[in-house]
Amino acid sequence: MFLGGSFSGLLTDLYELTMAAGYVQNRFEALATFELFVRHLPNRRNYLVAAGLEQALDFLENVSFSSEDVAYLRALPSFRSVHSSFFDYLSRFQFAGDVWALPEGTIFFPGEPLLRVTAPIAEAQLVETGLLSILHFQTLIASKASRVTASAAGRPVVEFGSRRAHGMEAGVLAARAAFIGGCEGTSNTYAGRRFCIPVYGTQAHSWIMAHEDEADAFRDFLNVFPDESTLLVDTYDVHAAIEKIIALERKPGGVRLDSGDVLADSQWVRKRLDSAGLYDVKIFASGELDEERIEILLQSGARLDAFGVGTALSTSSDSPNIGVIYKLVEVDLGDTVRNAAKFSQEKITYPGRKQVFRFADKDRKFSGDVIGLDTESFPGSEPLLVPVMRAGKRIATADEGPLAVMKRGQSRHLSDRAHLPEGILLLRTAEPPFPVRYSERLEELRDQVRQAVVKAARI
Amino acid sequence: MFLGGSFSGLLTDLYELTMAAGYVQNRFEALATFELFVRHLPNRRNYLVAAGLEQALDFLENVSFSSEDVAYLRALPSFRSVHSSFFDYLSRFQFAGDVWALPEGTIFFPGEPLLRVTAPIAEAQLVETGLLSILHFQTLIASKASRVTASAAGRPVVEFGSRRAHGMEAGVLAARAAFIGGCEGTSNTYAGRRFCIPVYGTQAHSWIMAHEDEADAFRDFLNVFPDESTLLVDTYDVHAAIEKIIALERKPGGVRLDSGDVLADSQWVRKRLDSAGLYDVKIFASGELDEERIEILLQSGARLDAFGVGTALSTSSDSPNIGVIYKLVEVDLGDTVRNAAKFSQEKITYPGRKQVFRFADKDRKFSGDVIGLDTESFPGSEPLLVPVMRAGKRIATADEGPLAVMKRGQSRHLSDRAHLPEGILLLRTAEPPFPVRYSERLEELRDQVRQAVVKAARI
Repeated sequence: MFLGGSFSGLLTDLYELTMAAGYVQNRFEALATFELFVRHLPNRRNYLVAAGLEQALDFLENVSFSSEDVAYLRALPSFRSVHSSFFDYLSRFQFAGDVWALPEGTIFFPGEPLLRVTAPIAEAQLVETGLLSILHFQTLIASKASRVTASAAGRPVVEFGSRRAHGMEAGVLAARAAFIGGCEGTSNTYAGRRFCIPVYGTQAHSWIMAHEDEADAFRDFLNVFPDESTLLVDTYDVHAAIEKIIALERKPGGVRLDSGDVLADSQWVRKRLDSAGLYDVKIFASGELDEERIEILLQSGARLDAFGVGTALSTSSDSPNIGVIYKLVEVDLGDTVRNAAKFSQEKITYPGRKQVFRFADKDRKFSGDVIGLDTESFPGSEPLLVPVMRAGKRIATADEGPLAVMKRGQSRHLSDRAHLPEGILLLRTAEPPFPVRYSERLEELRDQVRQAVVKAARI
Repeated sequence: MFLGGSFSGLLTDLYELTMAAGYVQNRFEALATFELFVRHLPNRRNYLVAAGLEQALDFLENVSFSSEDVAYLRALPSFRSVHSSFFDYLSRFQFAGDVWALPEGTIFFPGEPLLRVTAPIAEAQLVETGLLSILHFQTLIASKASRVTASAAGRPVVEFGSRRAHGMEAGVLAARAAFIGGCEGTSNTYAGRRFCIPVYGTQAHSWIMAHEDEADAFRDFLNVFPDESTLLVDTYDVHAAIEKIIALERKPGGVRLDSGDVLADSQWVRKRLDSAGLYDVKIFASGELDEERIEILLQSGARLDAFGVGTALSTSSDSPNIGVIYKLVEVDLGDTVRNAAKFSQEKITYPGRKQVFRFADKDRKFSGDVIGLDTESFPGSEPLLVPVMRAGKRIATADEGPLAVMKRGQSRHLSDRAHLPEGILLLRTAEPPFPVRYSERLEELRDQVRQAVVKAARI
């Protein structure tokens, strides 16, 4: 369970199960289409980065109900009137729907479906919570990582946030999503093994503190890791630590500043290392960094070669969630097709199966998106959603390892980012935002559905 | 893996492994004590709630390195100079240290150890990231849940946040931590099965939208779930939906408002239901709720009987992380014991093995804490840290299921909360904060260590 293997179908909100029971028991048989999209951008954000599709497809291929799962549900007091037919349905359950999605790494905007599921309604409903949970989290982290890596302006960024990620699984998946968002690697060693992400890390303050003498701590470490080790220099006093390093016989690959006045210290350290001929010793910064702090440090002239970013990245601290939702957009009853939308006051959604069409200008910079019906076509645009699963089976891709999959996502992301208009890359809210509009046909369809709904609701 | 079973030792930051390699290869053999504590309270928070100890102990009992794990490390370029002795050490690795901790549900404050580990230094170091990751997350969520449930002033709160928790594991563990923090139950069905937490949930907007007619949607649902179902009334128009419910033959247990003007709607709905004689039909609110919104709704006279709180709770949205750290406080070299502390400018820590002593006044309200050495005693106070693991084995507790463990945590928490001074329970920063001080002996020890360190660093 988690990160592959089998997934319990109970990894969902109870209401998905009660609704599925309702559909099965009432023999409400329809092919439903749900779309997963984000309602609004978080504050100060201008774009999002799709990630987590690999794990979402793993989940869809491997979700099932064990006999213990079924027995648990059957014994719930609220399920006592539910017929056996539903429990039999769960025992046989496997997802057999069709799925379209944005490839990992794709830059997208509110309203644009990240994923579209078409399946028998009970089936499409049962996977809602799992899909949201998986895609929300990696998209959240890849989107944050994109900002952080952009702020580093070409310098490597390593994801360091496992210890404050929301549990162990989150730490591993944050490392994966951060890589898609442009990070060079991670400190999470399991993510290194599982996804072949490059791993980084040398020593913590405790290593220095455990030794009576800081110089001994440095020397002992380099004896075991002679190549390219990064020594931590802020445990007691940065200047004194640098002098000890200059006096060492063996030299480190880099030094790390984790606290204090990183701007002033980096300038002093660079000058001192250079004056000792240690031009190749890199300066690495960590410690409560985020994209804003990195941008300020670099704009102020900090002499830094690489960054380790932890908590801000692994928890997307400025916006630890995005308003991602999974909405019913079409119900195909066999003889009739109904387009669904929700018209409560604040939360209006667009009906119909959608596609996202992206336009670029002459310089190949992205110039705008149109969200249209999937039956529409817009010459000169690129349709972003691609089919990824048919009848519950992944659409065959070349036999490639997890690193190739992620590198493809990272490349896609870096390419998309390079094609964004410059204003969209700013760390503050872009004015104007990236232009996204709904097609005329979609606006018309929404008006029709609205009228039908108003009539049906008799209000 | 995750939620019990075996844990890969690679679920850690790489630097824990490089440091462990350094200790093993350099034959640096010492018994180290690390303490896990929080540096500062998040903004507007006045206390924290310990949670996650059960999973932390699971991890310590079950963490090991498989042959694949060891082979992965051995093949890393940076490990090429590491001797075989270290890889042999990992193959045999199991945690055999002693652990003291705050029982789950305990209210605590910055500087107070949540957990204290004493073990051979490499061993204590290797488990750092895992312990932080597990305890940080559940403590984060239990602390948030405590505020949310306090704001509901005795009304039940159900945790609804799985879909935007940071992945599936986070959803399950958020449900557990929220229960400890006072929630009545969760929508996460797996958490229900795994931890015996009561589960709640009936239907979503998609259920209503899938039906041509809202009244049919209500009726069809009640046919399958006749008892105590909650019907969602805001899909199109709340007033119209309530009239349809009043006209139904079978009545629901409750109605749910998920959007719109919840204050005005709840008052209208209560009045209308009462006028139809439906006094027992409860009104349930959900939709972007948090403790501040609940407090405002109730203070404004909303007629609400229960709350479903999602994203704000499962991501602790106002503060998605807390500055929890794991610091070396003592190194026992056999012949000498050294107390460790860190003296970089901003991040000073106190040396020595600590205990937290809690005092209460005559009304049994908590009046203040003293953080002292574990060898100290303060008559009239309660020492909060208790031994939980000896030589890697859990200290035997009565044979009880996961629900009993959590209920004990919840009871402890509710009792602790009831004994807090009133100001500490406010949703804004308390002035003055809860009084916590270090003992005189601890202050003296810190001064001694500081002098020794300054001397050693020759600055």
